[in-house]
Amino acid sequence: MAGVLEASTADDWQVLEQDDLLYLFLERGIVVFELAPAFAPDHIASVRALAAQHYWDGLAVIRSQDNYVAQWGDPKAGTDDARSFGDVPAGITPEFYRPLDGLDLRSIDSDDAYADAVGFVDGFPVGSDGGRAWLAHCYGMLGAGRANEVDSGNGAELYVVTGHAPRHLDRNVTLLGRVVHGIEHLSSLPRGTGPLGFYESEAEYVAIQRIRIGSQLEESERVFLERFRTDTTAFERLVTSRKHRVETWFADPASRIGLCNVPIPVRETD
Amino acid sequence: MAGVLEASTADDWQVLEQDDLLYLFLERGIVVFELAPAFAPDHIASVRALAAQHYWDGLAVIRSQDNYVAQWGDPKAGTDDARSFGDVPAGITPEFYRPLDGLDLRSIDSDDAYADAVGFVDGFPVGSDGGRAWLAHCYGMLGAGRANEVDSGNGAELYVVTGHAPRHLDRNVTLLGRVVHGIEHLSSLPRGTGPLGFYESEAEYVAIQRIRIGSQLEESERVFLERFRTDTTAFERLVTSRKHRVETWFADPASRIGLCNVPIPVRETD
Repeated sequence: MAGVLEASTADDWQVLEQDDLLYLFLERGIVVFELAPAFAPDHIASVRALAAQHYWDGLAVIRSQDNYVAQWGDPKAGTDDARSFGDVPAGITPEFYRPLDGLDLRSIDSDDAYADAVGFVDGFPVGSDGGRAWLAHCYGMLGAGRANEVDSGNGAELYVVTGHAPRHLDRNVTLLGRVVHGIEHLSSLPRGTGPLGFYESEAEYVAIQRIRIGSQLEESERVFLERFRTDTTAFERLVTSRKHRVETWFADPASRIGLCNVPIPVRETD
Repeated sequence: MAGVLEASTADDWQVLEQDDLLYLFLERGIVVFELAPAFAPDHIASVRALAAQHYWDGLAVIRSQDNYVAQWGDPKAGTDDARSFGDVPAGITPEFYRPLDGLDLRSIDSDDAYADAVGFVDGFPVGSDGGRAWLAHCYGMLGAGRANEVDSGNGAELYVVTGHAPRHLDRNVTLLGRVVHGIEHLSSLPRGTGPLGFYESEAEYVAIQRIRIGSQLEESERVFLERFRTDTTAFERLVTSRKHRVETWFADPASRIGLCNVPIPVRETD
C-alpha cells in the first residue's frame, strides 16, 4: 500500500471540508468524524443544530461495550431531567438506506456475508441489494442510537463501532459518518461493566467538553485532513495491493478482501 | 439468543479443562485463553514449556495497535539481552493450516470474503478450501508472532486480535487459541504511538506478572469455565437465532451472518 500512496497525486486526495466534520472534544483527545450527507441528510441537519446550540457540552460517554460500540449523549435521556433538544425534534424519520440510483458506488469484488454487492461511495463503505444502498457498520462508523420505534432517534445519542463490524445492524440504524481522526480516544476507553457495556456509575462517565461542526470552530482549533478518494484508479490499485500482498512476510496472500478490511487512508495537512 | 441459552442443557456446554487454558496475569486483571491443540499442537507444546519455566514472568505487553492486535513477549527479543528460551527451539515448523480430514467442521451457511467454506470446530472459527482447514483471525483469536521466515516463531511472542477480523493473516501466522475470559484487559489498553502500535517507551509497557497453564496453578487461582459446544443442534439454533433476529428492535433482520459475528457463549462456573 505504501507504494500506492507514494505514487498518488493531489487529485487522489479529497480535502475534507470543515462543514462536513464533526468534532468531539474529550479531555483525553479530539475525535473527528466525516459526515455522510448523501446518506443521512436529516440526521446530519439535526446534529448540526444540536452542535450549534451546544447541546452535548457537559454530557458524557456513557457506554463502552467490548467488541461493539462506544456511545455518548445525555445520561438523563428519557427522564424529567433530560436536557432539552431546543427546536430539534425528538425523533426523525429513519435514514436506514437510500436508492442506489444517484450514487457513484465503486464496487469491490468481494463475497460479502451481509450484502449482494459492496463497495465505496465518497470514502464510505456501502452495501446494496441492487435497488437500495446503505452505509455498512464497519469499524469506526458513526451511528445514531434509537429506541424500539424506528423514528425514535434524532442524532443526540451517538455511537461509534469499536469492534468487529456488527453488520446485522445495517439498515436497522441510521449511520451518518465515520471516524477520520482520533478513534483511539473512544476505542481504548475502559469497558463498562453494566449490561450492554453501559457505565454503572457517574464516576465512570467520560465528560464531553463540547461537540462542534468544524465550521463552528476557530481556525486554530481545526484539524485539517485529506482522505483518499475511492472513485479513482489509485483506489483500485490500493484495493488490489491489499488483496495481493507482495510483502515478503506473506507466505500465502489471500488474493481476496472484505469490505471492512479495506483501509481508507487519511492524512493531516497544515 | 437468550432463549437458546435458557433452553440449553448441560450436554450443550463443554467444560474447559485447565490443561487447555492459558492464563495471562496482569495487574489490571486476568486473561484466559482456550488452546486449540487440534490446530497447533507444536506451538502449544512450546507455550506449555515456556509457561512451565516461567519464561514470560516480568516481560511485558509491548504493542497495542488500534483495530488490530495487542502483543506481548520479550521487549529485548532479538538482542543479546533477550531472555533464554531454555530447551524450547527459537523457531518451529509453522502450523498455518492442517488437513480438513479428521476435523468435525460444522459449517455455517455464509458468504465469506476469505474462504470457500467457514464454520466451527470445538468452538473455534475455521476456514477451509475443501482440502485444508485453518483457524480464522476473528476478534479474540490468539496467534504466535513471527519474523519474515515462516519458521521464525515459537509461541514466545503472542498476540490477540482486538479489532475487525484481519483475515488476510489467515494461513500466514499460526493461531493457537481464543480468549474466553477477560479480553477487555488487552483490548482497552492505551494504543501505542510507535509504528504498528508498538509502545515507544518502557514506561508504557504493561508488565506481565506471569503466564501459566491452568493445570500449573493452585486450585484457588483457577477460573472455571464452560464454553457453548458448536457440534450440537443447540448451536445450530443459536446461529439461526442470530441470523433471524426476532427482537422487536430489529426493523429489517439480516437473515444472514458472518463467521466472526457468531458469538460463542462462555460462562463461569463454581
